[in-house]
Amino acid sequence: MRRTSQQICHLKLYLEGAVECNRLISIDTFFYTSTELVILRLKMIIMGLNPTDKRTIYWDDGIIMVDQTMLPARYENVKITTIEELCNAILKLKVRGAPALGAAGAFGVALAACKSDARDLDTLKSKVKDAAKSIISTRPTAINLFSGVDRILKAIEPCATIEEVKEVAVEEAKRTADEDIITNKALSAVGASILKDGDVVMTYCNAGRLATVGWGTALGVIRSATISGKRISVYVCETRPLNQGSRITAFELLEDEIPATLIADNMAAWMMKEDKVNCVIVGADRITKEAVYNKVGTYMLAICAKHHGIPFYVAAPLSTCDFQDREIEIEQRDPSELIYCGKKQLAPKSVKVENPAFDATPLELVTKIITENGIKNPIELMRR
Amino acid sequence: MRRTSQQICHLKLYLEGAVECNRLISIDTFFYTSTELVILRLKMIIMGLNPTDKRTIYWDDGIIMVDQTMLPARYENVKITTIEELCNAILKLKVRGAPALGAAGAFGVALAACKSDARDLDTLKSKVKDAAKSIISTRPTAINLFSGVDRILKAIEPCATIEEVKEVAVEEAKRTADEDIITNKALSAVGASILKDGDVVMTYCNAGRLATVGWGTALGVIRSATISGKRISVYVCETRPLNQGSRITAFELLEDEIPATLIADNMAAWMMKEDKVNCVIVGADRITKEAVYNKVGTYMLAICAKHHGIPFYVAAPLSTCDFQDREIEIEQRDPSELIYCGKKQLAPKSVKVENPAFDATPLELVTKIITENGIKNPIELMRR
Repeated sequence: MRRTSQQICHLKLYLEGAVECNRLISIDTFFYTSTELVILRLKMIIMGLNPTDKRTIYWDDGIIMVDQTMLPARYENVKITTIEELCNAILKLKVRGAPALGAAGAFGVALAACKSDARDLDTLKSKVKDAAKSIISTRPTAINLFSGVDRILKAIEPCATIEEVKEVAVEEAKRTADEDIITNKALSAVGASILKDGDVVMTYCNAGRLATVGWGTALGVIRSATISGKRISVYVCETRPLNQGSRITAFELLEDEIPATLIADNMAAWMMKEDKVNCVIVGADRITKEAVYNKVGTYMLAICAKHHGIPFYVAAPLSTCDFQDREIEIEQRDPSELIYCGKKQLAPKSVKVENPAFDATPLELVTKIITENGIKNPIELMRR
Repeated sequence: MRRTSQQICHLKLYLEGAVECNRLISIDTFFYTSTELVILRLKMIIMGLNPTDKRTIYWDDGIIMVDQTMLPARYENVKITTIEELCNAILKLKVRGAPALGAAGAFGVALAACKSDARDLDTLKSKVKDAAKSIISTRPTAINLFSGVDRILKAIEPCATIEEVKEVAVEEAKRTADEDIITNKALSAVGASILKDGDVVMTYCNAGRLATVGWGTALGVIRSATISGKRISVYVCETRPLNQGSRITAFELLEDEIPATLIADNMAAWMMKEDKVNCVIVGADRITKEAVYNKVGTYMLAICAKHHGIPFYVAAPLSTCDFQDREIEIEQRDPSELIYCGKKQLAPKSVKVENPAFDATPLELVTKIITENGIKNPIELMRR
């Protein structure tokens, strides 16, 4: 069975992620023999994570994270050593993006455990639970923050000593972070198969390595396609009011030398009308049975993509799927985000503002959801 | 024949505009006897323009204009005394909005005539024409800039002395400005009939008094409906990258105590989805046989309105209509408008940017066009 070098590169990227995740392999575009898969699995397990992967958030006797509010002017790590600092960093969006928030939640619980001066096990566990509540209360919409926190709480439940709690919390949080990169690489390799050489992709907000622990989801797909030899260029919507598109996505793409063109959000439809866009790929904060919850503006983009007959893809790990029937709270952020930009006043100080951080795009407007487990029909995936 | 006070107020506003324009009267919602009309016409002619009308641009031995780049922090007039200053003011959007640009063009030609030291008639006329060319070259999309300039050039053609050229130019430019207010009041009164008490209108960019000489088009409709006693509230899209919505429209609405809520452009579709919007009203820079050219983002809003079954209205004087089949150039503005906001850097300095100032909304997406001559079906109006 002969393969092109592009296919091999593609497969390598896929396995670097998917196999370690122990997920079912189902790439839409090409198939491999089971012997090939076993050999590649073994290779990938030996290889492990790439030590040169840049990380948005990691553990080093405290939480180290890129302070994304400084981008694009400065790329700087900050060290978080208290739960208050962490909550503040999440609220101020120093760390943001659903998968990165998952890791932040996990490391947050580990931090609470490690920095506690509790002298007995019950007090420690109770203090850690209090910290977990504070962390969760910062942002209500992204599911990963909850699940990241929850995972560490569950892991420390059976622990019998204070030392064990601290060790298990840190180890499990590190594993959570590692798995995020692995999952992203898997879904990116899967997603790369939908892109053709020369494609122009529109993306929204930042679903790149800085929205995750590393590699990225929507941008991960673009990155994987590029590495596999396809020439992909990207329209970046600035994503008001906090400009995660212009500040962070444009920064990431330039860093990787992937051709990027910045536009204001309101120009997206016009670029589609002018036949400049082949598809849209965005990330997700939570996928429910009804809709994809993602940065506000995603819904507008999905309507415009439908109007122009352009595929609209969501790239997100399966951990973003929420199969429960619960009401989702959409976070309302501070009016000042629209009234000021830095020191510049953009609106009358007393104007009323609506500033929802997210909107919900009905699954009917989503062409496919790209997961580490294959490219899925959204209705089938969520309403099976 | 009995009328409610609202109807009378409505009629008064309408006539204040339409009658002086000597336009055909055709209000969709209610009709008047010809005797009533004659009496009201006479009253309005005697009344003339309201001296308390706030003006965006006027003549006082030079051009006085509100410097809109200072809004909302400061409301300040500047005096323009040379053509270079005027071109710079237009380029920097100190004065903007199609109807206001019409007046700026007209006053610009008057300025060129008055400030010239030409000693003979031919030299004067030739210098004025040169100035007209510079003015026109500043912004290619809005039709009114061309027609404002053209009107004064035509008016001075038959003038036989230097003094006459100067006098006629100034008088004709003043008349152009006066007529703009009158036309806006007429179309606003007409348009007010489409709004019901309690309606929530979404608007885009600024099509208010500051986009015109006075009163406004899209905001004029809202203003007239409010004055006639209807409780109207408004969603204001910030309108990136220069935020004419948040800076200018929000300012105008607050000034008039009309309830206004500011949103980012990308939130518009979500507000529609949440049933918060009854209709969209925007202005226009040029209406052709194919499309409405207006601030970029208008097209996106029209698609979203259609998707949600919400009427999408364009409020514009007939002078905005361009029945010629010519190619329309869409102005590309400086990338720095997206890379910086004031002193704050929003994107990597080297990122490629597309920054079209306008887009074109196909007439098929426009429910009605509100003109001083009645509420028109766009296809019938433009392709008759």
